[in-house]
Amino acid sequence: MRTIDWQGDRVVTIDQTLLPGERRMLELTTVDAVIDAIKRLAIRGAPAIGVAGGLGVAIAAQHAAARGEAVDSPAVRAEAQRVRAARPTAVNLAWAVDRVVARLPEGLDAVVAEATGLIEADARANEALSRRGAAFVRSLVPGGVGVQTHCNAGALACVDWGTALGIVRALHEDGALREVFADETRPLLQGARLTAFELEEMGVRYHVVVDGAGASVIARGLVDVVIVGADRVAANGDVANKIGTYPLALAAARAGVPFVVAAPESTVDLRTPSGADIVIEERDETEVLQWRGHPVAPPGARALNLAFDVTPHDLVTALVTETRVVRLAAGERLVAP
Amino acid sequence: MRTIDWQGDRVVTIDQTLLPGERRMLELTTVDAVIDAIKRLAIRGAPAIGVAGGLGVAIAAQHAAARGEAVDSPAVRAEAQRVRAARPTAVNLAWAVDRVVARLPEGLDAVVAEATGLIEADARANEALSRRGAAFVRSLVPGGVGVQTHCNAGALACVDWGTALGIVRALHEDGALREVFADETRPLLQGARLTAFELEEMGVRYHVVVDGAGASVIARGLVDVVIVGADRVAANGDVANKIGTYPLALAAARAGVPFVVAAPESTVDLRTPSGADIVIEERDETEVLQWRGHPVAPPGARALNLAFDVTPHDLVTALVTETRVVRLAAGERLVAP
Repeated sequence: MRTIDWQGDRVVTIDQTLLPGERRMLELTTVDAVIDAIKRLAIRGAPAIGVAGGLGVAIAAQHAAARGEAVDSPAVRAEAQRVRAARPTAVNLAWAVDRVVARLPEGLDAVVAEATGLIEADARANEALSRRGAAFVRSLVPGGVGVQTHCNAGALACVDWGTALGIVRALHEDGALREVFADETRPLLQGARLTAFELEEMGVRYHVVVDGAGASVIARGLVDVVIVGADRVAANGDVANKIGTYPLALAAARAGVPFVVAAPESTVDLRTPSGADIVIEERDETEVLQWRGHPVAPPGARALNLAFDVTPHDLVTALVTETRVVRLAAGERLVAP
Repeated sequence: MRTIDWQGDRVVTIDQTLLPGERRMLELTTVDAVIDAIKRLAIRGAPAIGVAGGLGVAIAAQHAAARGEAVDSPAVRAEAQRVRAARPTAVNLAWAVDRVVARLPEGLDAVVAEATGLIEADARANEALSRRGAAFVRSLVPGGVGVQTHCNAGALACVDWGTALGIVRALHEDGALREVFADETRPLLQGARLTAFELEEMGVRYHVVVDGAGASVIARGLVDVVIVGADRVAANGDVANKIGTYPLALAAARAGVPFVVAAPESTVDLRTPSGADIVIEERDETEVLQWRGHPVAPPGARALNLAFDVTPHDLVTALVTETRVVRLAAGERLVAP
């Protein structure tokens, strides 16, 4: 099953906020519904929100055409900009929206073809990335590989396969995976809820750990490699990913454990010079201060809810994309100097 | 109010598992009740469980005397060993039990005096530590100090004052505190529940952050110093503290931010050579996998619930106790070489 798909006039996707307790499908027929699903993380993961954003532009174009209006209009472009701004950190959203918007002058068919083409392209890119990443990891680690990961960079975060968890899946298919340690990933527990769900379905041996324990898992030698996804890779190789990624990179560097970032080329943003230039989303305090509506902190408590952090490129052993392996810590760069 | 006190024949303490929602006092009249309170973290924090353990031995001795039995008997010593084994990582528990057991040959009055003496001694030591620590921090940081802390090393973790949070309190009293960032401290949220509760009562400006965000708070320059408590300091200066402490130390070292460990001398364990020799408690998986009885991970999920981690001494700018400041990262040692 594709995590996100297109059915003629609507986006069909699984509501990730309800997993693993409930598998409920969403049918999104309006731009507002797409934006809402992205903002409340019913659709999440950099590649998935990219595809959803592209399809959101297709919906805007279809609705304009149905009203007898031009597809390439200020109104449709404004709708596209609203989709593009739904979340700031993952560059895939802007990338995908821009690709589809660029086809507006060619008319509705071109727009829909571009948007729906993102679905296949994402699945293909991530499968290629996963196989390349697995081969790279096996070149570093002899025997059964123990993997630490963070958040969810699996099929749920993409159309299919996943990025970091795609490499895990490819290692598993190769019989080269020993086990996985999955950080629970507060505040929204994408690791405990979603990565664990995908690992269960794969039949992989795994343990969930609290985020503070990831560094200890690495220091104790329980894993051979850390593999994470990315929401944006700056031109200098700095990586924005889910909050809690950076401390894993620090622990991996200290322990001499490879730290691998898995992301499609669409996540590489050469227009952003460095991590310091990446906008880090701050989300609502209640995500931290409440649990299922119950307060966990005293009345009056405030929270700073940074959704992402930045890992400096010197801590990234390698960035793996669908087309290349870039050994950033060793001095390789994303573009020729 | 003392977090833990003695009323003639019983330990009186606040049930920390119910804070901040409910302030319920516990009266512990049996050794089993003391052990249960320590195991389920109704009493928690290295100094507090030390004092509780010592008082538990006093209860065992009183009960023996009430039965007309000898106070220094194999039965009482066996009870003391059960108390001592309630939790493995914080050395204060073993330290306090051993101190009280050493008085058994002198009879009941000496035993009770030793145990109840721990209460005053802990409060005095922590006040001295707090003032020494505040002066040390002010020597490092000019102007208003921003502090990152983890877990709860406050009055609730001790008899009074606290250790890391005692330094925060002393800075606040001196008008030298700007603000505090408190890690929520999964899985049991001692930061969001208990540290936030104490900071609210102090009237200090603070924000709660998820544990994975602590490193970013440091990297962004939002704090001037990291201050944490300890459950055991090994002879070489390695520090066991709540899981999630070590990644803060890594982030502080990278950012050039001082990393200060605050602990009374009773936490220093010269019989344990290094952090590798410290027994790290593994607690029940359900602490990670459930929330108020609700599963957060799929059926079948397993967790590794390491309760503490070890921070190597080279990352510890200074250990502050009630009698000294030991600059471990600079090469100072706990004992003369």
